[in-house]
Amino acid sequence: MTSKKKKKIKPEKPRGFEDISGDDLLSLQDLISKIEDTYKFYGFDKLETSTIELSDVIGSYLPDQDRPNEGVFSFEDEDGRWLSLRYDLTSGLARYVAENYDSLPKPFRRYQSGWVFRNEKPGPGRFRQFMQVDADTVGSANPLSDAEMCMMFSDVFENIGIETKDYIIRLNNRNLLDALLNQVKISIKDNNDQYLTVMRSIDKLDRLGIKGVRELLGKGRKDKSGDFTKGADLSNEQIELIVNFLNQGEDCKKVSREDALLNLNKTFCKSDKFEEAIEELNSISSLLDDLGYNEEKVAIDPSVVRGLGYYTGPIYEADLVFPKNEELNNFGSVGGGGRYDNLVERLKGIKVPATGISIGVSRLLSAIKILNKNNINSTSVDAVVLIMDHSDKSFYFNLASQLRGEGIVTDLYMGESNMKAQLKYADKKGARVAIIVGEDEKANNSVTIKDLFKGKEVSSEISENEEWRSGKGSQITVLLDKMVESTKEILKNSS
Amino acid sequence: MTSKKKKKIKPEKPRGFEDISGDDLLSLQDLISKIEDTYKFYGFDKLETSTIELSDVIGSYLPDQDRPNEGVFSFEDEDGRWLSLRYDLTSGLARYVAENYDSLPKPFRRYQSGWVFRNEKPGPGRFRQFMQVDADTVGSANPLSDAEMCMMFSDVFENIGIETKDYIIRLNNRNLLDALLNQVKISIKDNNDQYLTVMRSIDKLDRLGIKGVRELLGKGRKDKSGDFTKGADLSNEQIELIVNFLNQGEDCKKVSREDALLNLNKTFCKSDKFEEAIEELNSISSLLDDLGYNEEKVAIDPSVVRGLGYYTGPIYEADLVFPKNEELNNFGSVGGGGRYDNLVERLKGIKVPATGISIGVSRLLSAIKILNKNNINSTSVDAVVLIMDHSDKSFYFNLASQLRGEGIVTDLYMGESNMKAQLKYADKKGARVAIIVGEDEKANNSVTIKDLFKGKEVSSEISENEEWRSGKGSQITVLLDKMVESTKEILKNSS
Repeated sequence: MTSKKKKKIKPEKPRGFEDISGDDLLSLQDLISKIEDTYKFYGFDKLETSTIELSDVIGSYLPDQDRPNEGVFSFEDEDGRWLSLRYDLTSGLARYVAENYDSLPKPFRRYQSGWVFRNEKPGPGRFRQFMQVDADTVGSANPLSDAEMCMMFSDVFENIGIETKDYIIRLNNRNLLDALLNQVKISIKDNNDQYLTVMRSIDKLDRLGIKGVRELLGKGRKDKSGDFTKGADLSNEQIELIVNFLNQGEDCKKVSREDALLNLNKTFCKSDKFEEAIEELNSISSLLDDLGYNEEKVAIDPSVVRGLGYYTGPIYEADLVFPKNEELNNFGSVGGGGRYDNLVERLKGIKVPATGISIGVSRLLSAIKILNKNNINSTSVDAVVLIMDHSDKSFYFNLASQLRGEGIVTDLYMGESNMKAQLKYADKKGARVAIIVGEDEKANNSVTIKDLFKGKEVSSEISENEEWRSGKGSQITVLLDKMVESTKEILKNSS
Repeated sequence: MTSKKKKKIKPEKPRGFEDISGDDLLSLQDLISKIEDTYKFYGFDKLETSTIELSDVIGSYLPDQDRPNEGVFSFEDEDGRWLSLRYDLTSGLARYVAENYDSLPKPFRRYQSGWVFRNEKPGPGRFRQFMQVDADTVGSANPLSDAEMCMMFSDVFENIGIETKDYIIRLNNRNLLDALLNQVKISIKDNNDQYLTVMRSIDKLDRLGIKGVRELLGKGRKDKSGDFTKGADLSNEQIELIVNFLNQGEDCKKVSREDALLNLNKTFCKSDKFEEAIEELNSISSLLDDLGYNEEKVAIDPSVVRGLGYYTGPIYEADLVFPKNEELNNFGSVGGGGRYDNLVERLKGIKVPATGISIGVSRLLSAIKILNKNNINSTSVDAVVLIMDHSDKSFYFNLASQLRGEGIVTDLYMGESNMKAQLKYADKKGARVAIIVGEDEKANNSVTIKDLFKGKEVSSEISENEEWRSGKGSQITVLLDKMVESTKEILKNSS
């Protein structure tokens, strides 16, 4: 490589996007496949829908639409129709079911993992592309299908090694909240602006606490940076009723689901809608009781909102709760879901009740990384073959082929540098051994296998430079036909 | 579900996009992981780059830019910068390497699979979103790294079960083509329009034959639909020289690489650039010889162009060749690649030579489906538990849990319909068995396990309706505590 400089474009990603590599990527894949396995064992089938959808077909149900295109990346097609990058997997599923309705098993149960895109204001830890892993049952109004979602949520956490005490599935019903708003004389019709502002304010309880929500329900709130968010402009009386309701949520977590529902029923608003919502939660709760999922796994919490505009009934939110871990104390939601009985109807013209959950694996992975600081996946390369004689590259390629043929993941150095640089390369790749055939080895039909992990240990123990340079204790020289066997031996001892 | 009709939006995908489900999706995943495994064993590490890139950073190197934005889906960010959906995985890799240059092992070797997007004119079998699986070595000018790409390409086909006789890796060098154009007095400077038109015309040899290419090199060509493509407007003399060169390609496939290169050298243009290109191919070819990849796997073909604008040296194309299979006879390229020594330099300002390959798995999968018509993956669901008593759903959920706990993928019917509809559901899911506990079974603490595959065989053999309805031979009734064991037995016999 020469150092000749040219006028260049700065290499960077767009704001709010990221790359994933190394152990992070392996962990992400591992996590996705464990979640998918949980769904699969429940009898859900895998689906992959298009990443790009027609904008009017998937509609627009995102919360906090503080941006043009209401949070969705959109662009015009040549024929004048607008296309959008999917903002979730549910809206594409609704399109898929409506489009293929007659040929699908009903209920239709599918799982899917994939990137979704939000045209949001980028910020630290706030990405505009993230991975979701979803499961949905479409075509069932059965409370068992809601209970099942809560159970699968819980099973996912248990299957990835998060203990019951460290997560909670919070269960609520959109109709409880709607009944509350009715009671305090707020119109819930057609997702009007005030309704949405109130719902968004309540949704921020976890992050802002009761004080912040009180401000957002009133005139508005100024955050630390000085930015002002306009409030819902409710009267003090309205605000107090809502705050009282939300405060109930605090107690609900400490009592059984049955008692929580009884308390809500006793102390709050009376309306048919409210009663129905309580009744629905009772059915789900009693199924959960029967099946051994008590309030330590799934709790009633009337303050759960879920931001997406399409929910119509029971809603679920999965939170990580680590009271004793400062970094994770306020970690909050890693997934959510709920019943959306009208989404397919928009496209199909008939009622198709549905329910589902979505897990944000990028967020979940961040939490897991904080939890298991030392439990890192191993990198993928076992061995690196160094090229000691550039005039005979085929010889070294053949060594690599032999190792690969025996199931050893083997890299071959492709550059032109000296041995020191090649060993540094092997180190950066995280390889366990370096395979070295220099002039001496070649003359003796032998190979030196350097244990790179042991080399590091040894080098910190011994002081004699001479001894270190001799590679004592960290490398062996064997006949070429023992290379595979000896390499396997070293790899076995390191795993 | 009521039949109440509402005004609705037609559920459809944008033109040129598709969903994937069932066996197609399982096969796609299987294919991707086999290709990734091949790359991984060669010591490449996995990477996932952002789906969205800054338009000016990834540049625009697509062939056949017959659309606005030159074939790329682009949209303006709030800050006025233009964003693009990636059109390949190589341009994002170049950005990644330039951005993280100092911390990467050099050479940097990575594999990646992911969706890429092309804003092309949609048509039958022409999709605007497709899956690529790539491997690249960045930071090596070593001919071994080019030879390795050809070998990995070949290994991929062998590993997915395509025999040597059914594929060919075609090897060429961009500089041979450039020398040719030099010879016929066509400027190759700065990817000018005429140069690109000539390259695109040559690239269509497989599809249009010599006659079509001749037209495109001249005034232009009218296709079957009557559409006219403007040509490169070369003189007859120029056209003849190019056509003669391309005709050499036909012979090259029938001779050894060494002879092919000798023939080219003897009979064609003389220039330093041409000699260098031949020399480079000779180095690669001799490494391939040493390592046992002869011309049956990797052949010299001077007519290979590869459409992307960033190639600078050796180029490779992987073709399926099934002379005796009509459907696949003209199937053509399922992947390609080449050396691109300037792509990182645009962003980093220093020379970083690189080479890589890309496999279009959607296309490859279509071919595999035609080849192995009967070799379909099994669906994912083993058993479906029917709900025979809707007042006791927990009982049936518990049966499903028992089966799941023993590794049996088990679905539970979530609708409200009768037994007939539930059996139809189990059928549509492709389940092997249905688990049935009706009133009788419950009274006797037993369960009926219906073998749905055998049921079909039996029903086509026996004529007595009574006998069929009794389920004779296709179902067994056992005590509940033998359910798991008996189900396993049936599943074992079916696999």
